[in-house]
Amino acid sequence: MEKDIHQRIQEANKRAFDIFVQGQPVWVGVKPAIEAIPGMKKNLLLHTGPPIEIDRMVPAQRDGVIGGILFEGLAKTRQEALEMVRRGEIELAPGLDYGVPGGGMAPTTASMPIQVARDLAHGTESYTTIQEGPSSEALRWGIYNEVVEERWAWFKGVLGPALDTALRETGGVNLRNVIARSLHMGDENHSRELGSTLLIFAELTPHLAQLDLEKAELVRCLDFLIKAERFALHVLMAGCNAVLQAAKGIDYCTVVTGMGGNGIEVGIKVSSLGEEWFTAPAPLIQGNYLNPSWTIEDTVPFSGDSCVVEAMGLGGLAAAASPAVTLLTGSTVQEAISRTRLMREITIGMNPNYQIPILNFEGTPTCIDIIKVLEKGIEPQSHAGIIHKRGGQAGAGVASIPMECFRKAFLSFAQKYALEEL
Amino acid sequence: MEKDIHQRIQEANKRAFDIFVQGQPVWVGVKPAIEAIPGMKKNLLLHTGPPIEIDRMVPAQRDGVIGGILFEGLAKTRQEALEMVRRGEIELAPGLDYGVPGGGMAPTTASMPIQVARDLAHGTESYTTIQEGPSSEALRWGIYNEVVEERWAWFKGVLGPALDTALRETGGVNLRNVIARSLHMGDENHSRELGSTLLIFAELTPHLAQLDLEKAELVRCLDFLIKAERFALHVLMAGCNAVLQAAKGIDYCTVVTGMGGNGIEVGIKVSSLGEEWFTAPAPLIQGNYLNPSWTIEDTVPFSGDSCVVEAMGLGGLAAAASPAVTLLTGSTVQEAISRTRLMREITIGMNPNYQIPILNFEGTPTCIDIIKVLEKGIEPQSHAGIIHKRGGQAGAGVASIPMECFRKAFLSFAQKYALEEL
Repeated sequence: MEKDIHQRIQEANKRAFDIFVQGQPVWVGVKPAIEAIPGMKKNLLLHTGPPIEIDRMVPAQRDGVIGGILFEGLAKTRQEALEMVRRGEIELAPGLDYGVPGGGMAPTTASMPIQVARDLAHGTESYTTIQEGPSSEALRWGIYNEVVEERWAWFKGVLGPALDTALRETGGVNLRNVIARSLHMGDENHSRELGSTLLIFAELTPHLAQLDLEKAELVRCLDFLIKAERFALHVLMAGCNAVLQAAKGIDYCTVVTGMGGNGIEVGIKVSSLGEEWFTAPAPLIQGNYLNPSWTIEDTVPFSGDSCVVEAMGLGGLAAAASPAVTLLTGSTVQEAISRTRLMREITIGMNPNYQIPILNFEGTPTCIDIIKVLEKGIEPQSHAGIIHKRGGQAGAGVASIPMECFRKAFLSFAQKYALEEL
Repeated sequence: MEKDIHQRIQEANKRAFDIFVQGQPVWVGVKPAIEAIPGMKKNLLLHTGPPIEIDRMVPAQRDGVIGGILFEGLAKTRQEALEMVRRGEIELAPGLDYGVPGGGMAPTTASMPIQVARDLAHGTESYTTIQEGPSSEALRWGIYNEVVEERWAWFKGVLGPALDTALRETGGVNLRNVIARSLHMGDENHSRELGSTLLIFAELTPHLAQLDLEKAELVRCLDFLIKAERFALHVLMAGCNAVLQAAKGIDYCTVVTGMGGNGIEVGIKVSSLGEEWFTAPAPLIQGNYLNPSWTIEDTVPFSGDSCVVEAMGLGGLAAAASPAVTLLTGSTVQEAISRTRLMREITIGMNPNYQIPILNFEGTPTCIDIIKVLEKGIEPQSHAGIIHKRGGQAGAGVASIPMECFRKAFLSFAQKYALEEL
């Protein structure tokens, strides 16, 4: 690579890093997807991970997608839903192409209430569905039944509008502040977001209590939000992704601006390469299982776009902030510290706003650089929930985003900029 | 010391340790002090720290005590209040003699709403006033004015009864659970209890929302509880002290069962020595000041009974659980770890229920042993708020409970058990 190319890349990556650091994500509202998301359509269904046809999907994702279609009332039966997709009457697209990271296997459909996060520093937005709570009966684990349907109808009719009004009252929840404080509270904000959830809950509660809601509905809202414990995850996915959106399209920039999996493939996006996906077979997730008789053979490979928080420097990259997650995933405090230290090798810098107490308040490793990943031979580590092949949650653990994604991305980068060597 | 004395002490201390570990403190209710506290009287006022006459008190404590008398309506003016105490018409006693740890300079008076914690494992109780929130205008900083009066009237008329009803609905808040979880959230639970406060808030909120309260009052309750941030401190003081009460009066036991200061003296209680106080001049608190022009010369020496949480193994003893407190008190993560390691030297064991993530989830150092303190020459370290000589909060830091308390206690112990040497 010529020297001036090196310099251009360095400057571009510095620009991306500054955007990450200066990003001011705020949760501003909750709106129906069709109103909030540019390009959303009644017959469009957004899925997690890179592009995939319905017949290539793992059963859990297909079931999630079909559940979304039934919830939307676009079809009456699962079979009908499947055929409508096959005939192209219902379109599928990756949520991340629309600024919509999804959790696990959960689709995003037109009438779902959508959490809108805006990066006030750069004006970009991102959108996520409401996290479905602790129940194993949830779209994100590929399950759609009466319980799930009732919950989503309640999200749509009650919780979503209530949150939207409360957010208007508060002027929005400052997610940079929530992330910063929660890192001092043992959250890495992918597999653990107890602090974030409680901080958001505490901020919204007095405003929710002022709404013109039936007492029983108010109590159900409050009860849902606190029992969720992981409620903040989807809000922060939107917040992180709003900042990632701001770092897209920087010429010469080799920083990762998107990551997600669909159970078959995992893919990344790179700033200078726009919305192109660079994919590899989805890795399995090493971790702990809820049922001790389960093994890795029972699990679905990496799926969901929640790893956008890793792209922002949280989750696996901030593992050292959350010794408590090691209890969940079966590793040790030392491993968590090592993981964060390792991630420094493949990132542009440390975000001074997001500090890790145990590392003397040094910042989280920020801006995954595809060139550093390739040069060092170190794959980004993502924390992740594990999905059972029969649907439902199997456990939690950690996965490596495969080197193949980065090789393909670099090839495309080299082609675009007519480079001859790395 | 003869061998069998050694053995008796060891067995007695093991019994105390088991009580500390098995303790199940639960916050069960909020009642007027005169109903809740055995021995409480209309003209009795409980102060923090060891016994002290009103004319020996530092001005901030005297102002706090006078404020309590005015709030109680026992006198109309400060001068009248002072003279009624001098004439013995109003009695003063240390709160810790009644199972009532107080915060800073705050008195406990007959009509104040009192948080009742019960150790379900042993049936013992302890009582604390409601933490007054973040305002520097507060009885615990020695200030009583119209703002403080209105707040306490509202505690009495609205917040206290609301919390009591909500607690009846929930069956009480399990404080063992709150402490255990909050240690995973960066709380040492003396100078930082953000996690504990949010956990308690989240547990009570849906029940508060169900009460027959005016919407504006409900909102004020919720708003107060979350803006307090340190609301949990007083609840946990009662919880910890309920367990300490269970460990009192064990023959031959050399474990500390009470600690508190009044700005002039600091004192300890020891299990086998009942309610006797062993005192020394109150130490100054090393730390950070809210106003950079202030120095240690502007501060009141150690005061308040919040160090009952240290006696339980939290606060300074659990410093390593809370790297974030080091930001507040001007030390480093390594110092916090060293502090907890040092405290292991003077305690009987580590409480497996209360784990410190950063130390590979080892337990908090538990049961301060006066013999170990003397043998090792290591003074217990207590985190503490710092009070300004002119009233109000000056900052936060750490203090050593002086060796002299432990020497006096051991002398009394040696006398009681006719020992000839240590």
